[in-house]
Amino acid sequence: MEIKVIGIGAGDPDYLTVQAVKAIAEVDVFFVLDKGEVKQELVELREEILRRHATGAAYEVVVGRDPERDRTSEAYVESVDDWRRRRADVCAGMIAESLKPDQTGAFLVWGDPSLYDSTLAILDDILARGELSFEVDVIPGISSVSALAARHRVGLNQVGKPIQVTTGRRLAKEWPDDVDDVVVMLDAQTAFSAHADQDADIYWGAYLGTPDELLVAGRLSEVAGEIERIRAEARDRKGWIMDTYLLRRNHRPKA
Amino acid sequence: MEIKVIGIGAGDPDYLTVQAVKAIAEVDVFFVLDKGEVKQELVELREEILRRHATGAAYEVVVGRDPERDRTSEAYVESVDDWRRRRADVCAGMIAESLKPDQTGAFLVWGDPSLYDSTLAILDDILARGELSFEVDVIPGISSVSALAARHRVGLNQVGKPIQVTTGRRLAKEWPDDVDDVVVMLDAQTAFSAHADQDADIYWGAYLGTPDELLVAGRLSEVAGEIERIRAEARDRKGWIMDTYLLRRNHRPKA
Repeated sequence: MEIKVIGIGAGDPDYLTVQAVKAIAEVDVFFVLDKGEVKQELVELREEILRRHATGAAYEVVVGRDPERDRTSEAYVESVDDWRRRRADVCAGMIAESLKPDQTGAFLVWGDPSLYDSTLAILDDILARGELSFEVDVIPGISSVSALAARHRVGLNQVGKPIQVTTGRRLAKEWPDDVDDVVVMLDAQTAFSAHADQDADIYWGAYLGTPDELLVAGRLSEVAGEIERIRAEARDRKGWIMDTYLLRRNHRPKA
Repeated sequence: MEIKVIGIGAGDPDYLTVQAVKAIAEVDVFFVLDKGEVKQELVELREEILRRHATGAAYEVVVGRDPERDRTSEAYVESVDDWRRRRADVCAGMIAESLKPDQTGAFLVWGDPSLYDSTLAILDDILARGELSFEVDVIPGISSVSALAARHRVGLNQVGKPIQVTTGRRLAKEWPDDVDDVVVMLDAQTAFSAHADQDADIYWGAYLGTPDELLVAGRLSEVAGEIERIRAEARDRKGWIMDTYLLRRNHRPKA
């Protein structure tokens, strides 16, 4: 039994790699967690990818119900851990029920499975329980971070300097002094606004790689308000938003 | 005139995205900087990619001589800046000489053009000089960081935590206390050894995505020496090495 975790890139079906295309064609059973959310466009995009590339033999799609997550909890990490455990229960059930010993199953992951995605941790959890045994094969994908940089035609790092990839929750608390270039994923709010007094540039993108893609770049102090407005309008219009951004601190000589 | 900067992924030709495949087929002139180095295998791999995918009309490959870089300089950033300027001279010359106004040129970049690659900065330099004018289109690629994580079947971040991508030069000086997960690119030495006294895990990979791929993972204190040995042997045998690694600090309860 093998489970492939396939990165399908950040939105654009053409972000699929040749490796992912080949892998998808070999899969017998695709496992999907139904988030019961309004992101119908993402579901359709994934179905489009299957129609185009799942060209091998017949394949099956098994949909599990994603457990509700306690987003009100103050104990963020514990809440994520508990949610992940319940997701592992759901996934273990799907695998045990639907995948035969000689078959290949797969989870399709938006972006890159190595960045802020829980699929690998869930499979590790399941394997650690010892009730199921399978090989895991991971296919890397174009992350929203790479897509963001490409769309803005900008490098993520400055020469010889580090980059930090972090969450909105953390950035809202602090932008560390020793890292000038910060990429933020999972920002439910607009944590960049907390730093609009700094001399910095922002490269922001939402719905990257899709026909609805939004891009704004400029001096943080000048465009922070515009991004907040565009972001709120888009979320209202579409019912959901996925965005990411690069903050770059400047060190201009003081006048 | 358009210049495409195409990420071709970290080693495996199957890391090419569908978008990169389509872009390569549209290119009239591929620009290559000949590093005059021993990485003949990388040159062959790139030629293999062109043979497979440059299937549009006839295409041309223009090779420029990459300027020597002063690697002895203490002033690392200045030395890189100067080298980049000289590279920009070479590239501007190639573009001016070989690309017609209605044509599309391209640079193929290993990994992802947004991570520790100078092509975008060079093109910005050339455009800033005002002598040449062209559109720039960037195609993201699978970085060696994504490839490393996929091959080790591991996530880069822990739940809700940041990741720092940095250089060996910086890590040798310091592993910041506030970032437990650090990915190191461009490590000419083995900077991880400076931290072998910490309770940490390392996920190391060299020649990722190629038939020569090497992978070692384990507790840093236990495998640091083994990685140093394997790395030195491989570099001697092949004449070059490209490697990257993830360091993950543990917070095990003290006994």
